[in-house]
Amino acid sequence: MARSWLDIDPSSDFSLANIPFGIISTPNDSSPHVGIAIGTYVLDLKVLALQIGPENLLPSGGASSLAVFAQPTLNAFAQLGRSVHRHVRGRIQDLLSEDTTHPDLLKNNAELRERALVPQQSVQMHLPMAIGDYTDFYAGYHHAYAVGVMFRGPENALQPNYTHLPVGYHGRASSIVVSGTPVRRPVGQILQDPKADPKRPTVAPTQRLDIELELGCFISKSNPLGQPVGIDEAEEHVFGYVLLNDWSARDIQAWEYVPLGPFNGKNFATTISPWVVLADALEPFRTKGIENPTPVQEYLKEKREATVYDIHLEVDLTTPEGNTTTVAKTSGKNLMWSFPQMIAHHTLGGCPLRPGDLLGSGTISGPVPEQSGSLLELSEGGKRQFQLNGGNETRTFLKDGDTVTLRGFCVGKAGGRVGFGECTGRVQG
Amino acid sequence: MARSWLDIDPSSDFSLANIPFGIISTPNDSSPHVGIAIGTYVLDLKVLALQIGPENLLPSGGASSLAVFAQPTLNAFAQLGRSVHRHVRGRIQDLLSEDTTHPDLLKNNAELRERALVPQQSVQMHLPMAIGDYTDFYAGYHHAYAVGVMFRGPENALQPNYTHLPVGYHGRASSIVVSGTPVRRPVGQILQDPKADPKRPTVAPTQRLDIELELGCFISKSNPLGQPVGIDEAEEHVFGYVLLNDWSARDIQAWEYVPLGPFNGKNFATTISPWVVLADALEPFRTKGIENPTPVQEYLKEKREATVYDIHLEVDLTTPEGNTTTVAKTSGKNLMWSFPQMIAHHTLGGCPLRPGDLLGSGTISGPVPEQSGSLLELSEGGKRQFQLNGGNETRTFLKDGDTVTLRGFCVGKAGGRVGFGECTGRVQG
Ligand SMILES: [Ca+2]
Ligand SMILES: [Ca+2]
Ligand SMILES: [Mg+2]
Ligand SMILES: [Mg+2]
Ligand code: NI
Repeated sequence: MARSWLDIDPSSDFSLANIPFGIISTPNDSSPHVGIAIGTYVLDLKVLALQIGPENLLPSGGASSLAVFAQPTLNAFAQLGRSVHRHVRGRIQDLLSEDTTHPDLLKNNAELRERALVPQQSVQMHLPMAIGDYTDFYAGYHHAYAVGVMFRGPENALQPNYTHLPVGYHGRASSIVVSGTPVRRPVGQILQDPKADPKRPTVAPTQRLDIELELGCFISKSNPLGQPVGIDEAEEHVFGYVLLNDWSARDIQAWEYVPLGPFNGKNFATTISPWVVLADALEPFRTKGIENPTPVQEYLKEKREATVYDIHLEVDLTTPEGNTTTVAKTSGKNLMWSFPQMIAHHTLGGCPLRPGDLLGSGTISGPVPEQSGSLLELSEGGKRQFQLNGGNETRTFLKDGDTVTLRGFCVGKAGGRVGFGECTGRVQG
Repeated sequence: MARSWLDIDPSSDFSLANIPFGIISTPNDSSPHVGIAIGTYVLDLKVLALQIGPENLLPSGGASSLAVFAQPTLNAFAQLGRSVHRHVRGRIQDLLSEDTTHPDLLKNNAELRERALVPQQSVQMHLPMAIGDYTDFYAGYHHAYAVGVMFRGPENALQPNYTHLPVGYHGRASSIVVSGTPVRRPVGQILQDPKADPKRPTVAPTQRLDIELELGCFISKSNPLGQPVGIDEAEEHVFGYVLLNDWSARDIQAWEYVPLGPFNGKNFATTISPWVVLADALEPFRTKGIENPTPVQEYLKEKREATVYDIHLEVDLTTPEGNTTTVAKTSGKNLMWSFPQMIAHHTLGGCPLRPGDLLGSGTISGPVPEQSGSLLELSEGGKRQFQLNGGNETRTFLKDGDTVTLRGFCVGKAGGRVGFGECTGRVQG
């Protein structure tokens, strides 16, 4: 990867190899619009596009217009399709390169640099897309297995369908929030004593507030009602990826979820990171997922073996006093189902996906407790207090004032780190 | 109720007592906009509003503008709130009354009548609202009980939570279609032999295609993230009601639904009737629902007893040859939970509802087979062939070419029928 004329720290998630897209508002322009992250800056694409013109950013001859960069969501840009995303990302990489082919446009244009490059601290981030529907899958094998053991024992840990299809359910789109939004501890119906007869639920704030470390996948291209997306076309329907924290109230969920699945235990908040890492930026980090012992149906068979991404994933917990502990480290490769498989399955019966729809991977855990993507696993179902740094603090589930921060990044061979930035939220009582 | 100067058949769903709102396009105006149904006509509100001006339609001094009637969805009108819906409905009832206070505006204005009153056959109906999120509940007690008996026997028919909270799950918004849209028989993973070990699912078109007769409730007023809607305020958040057919593929659903709930078995299509019957229009038809033997939590307690509606509901099945049988008749009073209770529960943990969000009641069945809101019940789990009119035709589940039509109406004491029109869909192979 080329070097940039900008000074980019090697530890930055936002190297020249990345170029993630987001929705920003800036000190000079309070209406949300499109930008990309580079080092400690945001490059304002609304400003840039107006100045340098479509011919220097968009493919020639296409129907796409610069207006997509002035939109308050990325939906219009996403809809232009993967070849346009690739072209625009390539043009931006060129403009920001030490040896750019057009130094006059930005590198040597002090006036435009001043207006278009905004320090990230002064930028406000918004939800990147208008999300029509949100689907959460359950593709993290180790999480599904560990939780299954807790509830049903090792013999029946996984349901019989688990290795045959990517299990998923419909989530709530209206409560998806961007990183930094406070998360209110939800009140709900809770069965304090599951063995009592008759059952006596109470209404109270959840006592088992948890997180779920997931990857989110944004859809770019729609399929019409009744027309499935074939597994080999599925990647053309992907816009890009974010980190996703599927906040979960385990006690509310346990009482409500039979027979139709999670509801209020999940729909109070889902936090996503603000920068959408384009599918192309993750290509170099492909790897094999968890081997599936079951031969899968034809519609789920992929041509290549490396169908998931080797993304380093971390969960930080910061106490109200400000002590931060990295409570888990895992990897994006701990998935048994890939996003193309999820897309092929989701649309098998003709369900339409639309630009801006969001798919969650399911909780991503490794095989050992320190690699848990949820506190349910870290605390062994709430039975084990796990230790935090700095004193004698421990946790099973989250306390008011706790902040959870997810991080994710890939490290390229020649540097060129591709990361997601932070996905963070603080619990309010 | 006053008489109209229009000739309205007493059997019409669209009497002067109704005035349901929908999204229409007409021979003169192909861009979708707002109309109401009256007798065999549609009154085009975009045309009417422009002609008679805001003072004759909208409350004075409000912030609302006539532009809401030119919108392609009812979301903007719904957001104006229940007092505005009431005012506009009242104004339209006056304009259409024999003894209107303003005969000059419409009754005696032949030129405007000609332009604004369009025969329903020449009007195309569209989805009435942009639906952000769709939630399906399970409040039809007899359906939940009958299906529970089938799967778990009479002892454990209802899960322990059933009488404590309105069980619900998140549905799929992108596949909601307006009445008349063909429904493709979905392909999916099916376990032909549930007893085989190991399990051998196949991929095939569903062989157990079913319907679910439900009422749908559209939300008008949003609640912010983190702020529940109290049960006494919930009615102010309701815009109105439609009929809803939650098409279901029982074999796909049975294999996929553990542990996270229905997915592809439900997300291929949900049909709604095009006309939104305003909450006010149903007020005269309030009645008591199914008695709940369990004392409910404070947040679910309603002040009045009559919390549901006495709506006559019918399911017609028309064969490919054109023979129609009314296979079931039931009533909207067969609900154990009311829509205000569903809203209070849905938002208890802070989940935001937004204008245009849709809530389904769950399948509405009566206590006997001829009152079944699903073929699963009518056919006793697929074991009984039920008879159709006209020859020797029978069914368990739906055949290709079958058309299912839901109808719903209330009959007022002094005439003044308030109905939903049709909610229909034909199965395509
Ligand atoms: Ca999850
Ligand atoms: Ca249903
Ligand atoms: Mg969530
Ligand atoms: Mg449905
Ligand atoms: Ni050039």
